[in-house]
Amino acid sequence: MPMPSSVQAGSGSLAIDGNFSVALTGHSEARLDRASERFYRQLSRQTGLIFARRSAEASKATLVIHTDHANKTVQELGEDESYSLEVTSTGAKLNAATPLGTMRGLQTFLQLVDVSANGFAAPALLVTDQPRFPWRGLLIDSSRHFIPLEVIKRNLDGMEAVKLNVFHWHISDNQGFRAESKKLPKLHTLGSGGLYYSQGEIRELIEYARDRGIRVVPEFDMPGHSSSWMVGYPEIASTPGPFKIDEEWGVMDPAMDPTNEKTYKLLDTFIGEIAQLFPDHYFHIGGDEVNGKAWDANPRIQEFKKAHGYKSNEELQTYFSQRVQKLVTKHGKASIGWDEIFVPGAPKDVVIHSWRGPKSLAAAAKQGYQAILSNGYYIDLMWSAARHYAVEPLSGDAAALTPEQQRLVLGGEATMWSEYVDGENIDSRIWPRTAAIAERLWSPQSVTDVKSMYERLEVISQRLEWLALTHRSYYRLMLQRIAGPAAPEEFAALKTLTDVLEPVKDYTRWETMSAHPIASTPLNRIVDAVPPESDLGRRFDEAVNTFIEGRCRDASVAARLRTQLTKWRDNDAALQSLAMNSSFVKEVAPISQDLSAAANAGLAALDAIAKSTPLADDAKAQLAATLAAASKAKAQLLLMPAPSIRKLIDAAASGGACAEKL
Amino acid sequence: MPMPSSVQAGSGSLAIDGNFSVALTGHSEARLDRASERFYRQLSRQTGLIFARRSAEASKATLVIHTDHANKTVQELGEDESYSLEVTSTGAKLNAATPLGTMRGLQTFLQLVDVSANGFAAPALLVTDQPRFPWRGLLIDSSRHFIPLEVIKRNLDGMEAVKLNVFHWHISDNQGFRAESKKLPKLHTLGSGGLYYSQGEIRELIEYARDRGIRVVPEFDMPGHSSSWMVGYPEIASTPGPFKIDEEWGVMDPAMDPTNEKTYKLLDTFIGEIAQLFPDHYFHIGGDEVNGKAWDANPRIQEFKKAHGYKSNEELQTYFSQRVQKLVTKHGKASIGWDEIFVPGAPKDVVIHSWRGPKSLAAAAKQGYQAILSNGYYIDLMWSAARHYAVEPLSGDAAALTPEQQRLVLGGEATMWSEYVDGENIDSRIWPRTAAIAERLWSPQSVTDVKSMYERLEVISQRLEWLALTHRSYYRLMLQRIAGPAAPEEFAALKTLTDVLEPVKDYTRWETMSAHPIASTPLNRIVDAVPPESDLGRRFDEAVNTFIEGRCRDASVAARLRTQLTKWRDNDAALQSLAMNSSFVKEVAPISQDLSAAANAGLAALDAIAKSTPLADDAKAQLAATLAAASKAKAQLLLMPAPSIRKLIDAAASGGACAEKL
Repeated sequence: MPMPSSVQAGSGSLAIDGNFSVALTGHSEARLDRASERFYRQLSRQTGLIFARRSAEASKATLVIHTDHANKTVQELGEDESYSLEVTSTGAKLNAATPLGTMRGLQTFLQLVDVSANGFAAPALLVTDQPRFPWRGLLIDSSRHFIPLEVIKRNLDGMEAVKLNVFHWHISDNQGFRAESKKLPKLHTLGSGGLYYSQGEIRELIEYARDRGIRVVPEFDMPGHSSSWMVGYPEIASTPGPFKIDEEWGVMDPAMDPTNEKTYKLLDTFIGEIAQLFPDHYFHIGGDEVNGKAWDANPRIQEFKKAHGYKSNEELQTYFSQRVQKLVTKHGKASIGWDEIFVPGAPKDVVIHSWRGPKSLAAAAKQGYQAILSNGYYIDLMWSAARHYAVEPLSGDAAALTPEQQRLVLGGEATMWSEYVDGENIDSRIWPRTAAIAERLWSPQSVTDVKSMYERLEVISQRLEWLALTHRSYYRLMLQRIAGPAAPEEFAALKTLTDVLEPVKDYTRWETMSAHPIASTPLNRIVDAVPPESDLGRRFDEAVNTFIEGRCRDASVAARLRTQLTKWRDNDAALQSLAMNSSFVKEVAPISQDLSAAANAGLAALDAIAKSTPLADDAKAQLAATLAAASKAKAQLLLMPAPSIRKLIDAAASGGACAEKL
Repeated sequence: MPMPSSVQAGSGSLAIDGNFSVALTGHSEARLDRASERFYRQLSRQTGLIFARRSAEASKATLVIHTDHANKTVQELGEDESYSLEVTSTGAKLNAATPLGTMRGLQTFLQLVDVSANGFAAPALLVTDQPRFPWRGLLIDSSRHFIPLEVIKRNLDGMEAVKLNVFHWHISDNQGFRAESKKLPKLHTLGSGGLYYSQGEIRELIEYARDRGIRVVPEFDMPGHSSSWMVGYPEIASTPGPFKIDEEWGVMDPAMDPTNEKTYKLLDTFIGEIAQLFPDHYFHIGGDEVNGKAWDANPRIQEFKKAHGYKSNEELQTYFSQRVQKLVTKHGKASIGWDEIFVPGAPKDVVIHSWRGPKSLAAAAKQGYQAILSNGYYIDLMWSAARHYAVEPLSGDAAALTPEQQRLVLGGEATMWSEYVDGENIDSRIWPRTAAIAERLWSPQSVTDVKSMYERLEVISQRLEWLALTHRSYYRLMLQRIAGPAAPEEFAALKTLTDVLEPVKDYTRWETMSAHPIASTPLNRIVDAVPPESDLGRRFDEAVNTFIEGRCRDASVAARLRTQLTKWRDNDAALQSLAMNSSFVKEVAPISQDLSAAANAGLAALDAIAKSTPLADDAKAQLAATLAAASKAKAQLLLMPAPSIRKLIDAAASGGACAEKL
């Protein structure tokens, strides 16, 4: 995962043991040597083997790599990432035009190696592969919560594993300015609360990313999302200071003053400095969500609008964007920004980053602008992998573009906004779902089978743990903290419940809270601990669907459903006992009762089906009411089996899906 | 854990929330500030809370710490580690004579904080505490397998958590010389295969340890266990070279030449250098397991013995030890060494490190020598925590010592010999069992309740995970590698089996293999993955004991046993299916059949008990034979429930324990 563009199965397999070795031929560079080292180490981790590494001679090596020529000194958009990989029972050959292709191919090889009846082996096959889109990114917001450097690093390792190639670093926002500026030091000293990345650390991360074939695109959001700038430099604000770092989140009022030349002078200095620090050609200027209140409150800005004939704040922002884009150009970079920066007169090299959706993507492409998609890839919204997987960049209006226009759609980015994540749980919000998005962006458009995706997602999720990602291991640790020193059966009861809970979706968590402080809100509740997607909930739903599609005849599926429902029904006592000793568990005690009641209702439905007696209307209404109550979010959590059980009740009552049986 | 020497319960509890703060008063030093920082971080990890840390004023702080005076510049044996800790519902006070005591008290406080019905809290109480023994150590052998620095560091964190205060670094042995020597660089360049710690890293580790109140005692084993020295300096060997780093393990023949002045000249240089590098007053000279073959093979050494009137190689080693101890003294240090260095004329400040047992410990003390115990604390032997816990330094001959002599027994050390551990599984061999040994060495002699120990061990084991120790998390990862991409029910079957397996004990693994290579043997089998002690096996045995002690009358215990046995009986099919796809699982397929058969036999016993019909002799014999077969080690693994099930069969047959019922 992601699925290569072409795979031909061969016969037999290549045994992998301690004698396995790699030879690099063709173009040589230190980055390839390091990639080879990393490959050995990774293969060692995932097999536990120790490699003697006696020979790196091409004639004797197990895996012979040929790289044709170098990449650009600074990785560019659209460089060749293709490779071919042939595995036979006697050896393997990896050929690529560039080191980027070689690195992609090595990841494919790693995914092929697995345990077999005779130790470790890779199946014989021939892969030829290249990405569908050249811009495949992950955004990490390290402003709302500061994300430690080593956490970002292990996520870059994860990105490499699934062939993503752009790390979009959302490094400043209202809640913190996280990059050291030597020319404007009040930005980070006053704007970060002490939590920022030094320029040395930033350079280190860029090197780390380059080693993995990943570009680093920095985003300094402006003119909104910029309170943290104004703490140190209130003179660029539209309203009088003093300012402080925003503790709450949401769309905030402060905005830079687009009518003040001081603003552009400061931005000129700043962009000049940052353009040196980040080698990538693209500079993300943000541009989103300016509510205009700060501009409306300033008479001088009102006069400026009048004098220039601007009828709306949007027009004023256009003016600002045009000025900033010129500064970016002046410093040798191209701008990328959110939908709002797509303004008349924008330089032809800007990239439109669509948070609004395919319509704006298509509109940009139609006018000859490049664009990438993030709408549909907001992984902070707690959607299922399947839902993200279904988001196709070339759909809707974009599907109707000419082939030439479609080529302007460069790809997309998963966006990890960090209001509700910190170093402890961020991995679980990124992985494994981002692997599904990575497949959407790399693999052929025809690769859409959801069942296959979930099977492969489970495998890659396990493998990502070898990269020290904590997206699976964090869960038990957080639950143990939540449970305290519980008896084993009480802890098991908690896990039985939380295994079928998911955080509420979209912005519901935000909407159901009256205040939204970030820095002072511990992320230690059950809503912070459960993964975005419940695997068990999904599998239960699949079993229910299978049962109903089979006209409720399959006794073995019925037995499995019954076992599961019985376990849920009987789970509540131990959980309530634990809830007496833990305020965190107490929060989900009502959901535990819901689960018990819902499971009981499901068993009643199975009983009715088993007796071939359709549920009476009043019985159905009663069970349906139980499920309706259980389907309501509580403690910002959703009880995932509720809708599935509801299907069983409908089946038991309607004589519909289970008509023949009933 | 370890249990303090005195605890008086108070009433109520102290709430811990984001307003919690610490104030340091009295003696101040940077190490205390760092300890306070570490404490905040640790408390944050174990609660998920974010501390505003608004006030460090003593009058307003939640926890007020008073430290009386400084410790020695270099931590010494026997420094004051006592503290008192009072927690009330309104605040807490920690008083200690020295920073060491403060650090010990902070660990106690951390252990008190847990989730409650109203968020996090610490119970009100008064603790006064000091260690029983002043030398409480953990040995890590980083010669047999190189243990990465960060792995050692996290184990030092674990040591701090359980109040151990000596890290014994077994840094050279036949299989590798792991310390950089600037004066004799061929030691590490030729003797380590490239895997060694630079002097910078060593200094870093010593600093890290000092910050945690831990002394670092280096061991350079001589005159045996020293092949790795001779790779670079064959001139100090007793037999002609060339030498190579030993790949096998066991007691090897090579030994330094005790009759050659070159040996002492080199040792003088080396000890002089190392005495500077390691500030601790003690220098461990090893001295164990010289088999004498190299000396017997050298006519010149034979002549030397004759000329000096030495009748045995032991006497020759005495000569060597005396010479080396003088060198150690010359460089300002005191010697510690294994039993063998306890020789006539040894300086009175040497410490005897007993691998042989309490007899030699007592013998040393009787002659006025200090001694520490490791016999019984060899955690590489895969004993249960209970077995280690029962090892009392002042038992056997040592119990009969006078109080004054008993004071010469300084404590003990858990020894993590690394033939079968690497960075991946070492934590699981050290933790949590070493916490039980730490309690033996810290707490009053009267603290011996095994049930209480296991309850508290489970809690500390969970908490040690917050220090990034992998002693619990490694297990699922290794099993997943072993299982490959298995169906969930197949993986569950593997875990059901491995959850009740333990590695064979003592040196059985060594004895059942014809060759013992280290560097080329991957540690990726099930014997490397399962923990030394099966919690489930222990709990099942407890349930069986409870059942039989209750005269087999308790229906609820019987039902629990039956549920467990049924699960084991029915586990084999899925496991055999997995064994077809994994050579690692295939290795335990016969044990899975054993488990199934043993569980079946256990169910037959329960049936007989339920029917009040004693088992007939032939039926008993048949079941007993099944259990005997299942009790035999296979694939270097023991099936832990086998002896417990055997008890059920005896109960069902004999009319003994269950007499009244039957």
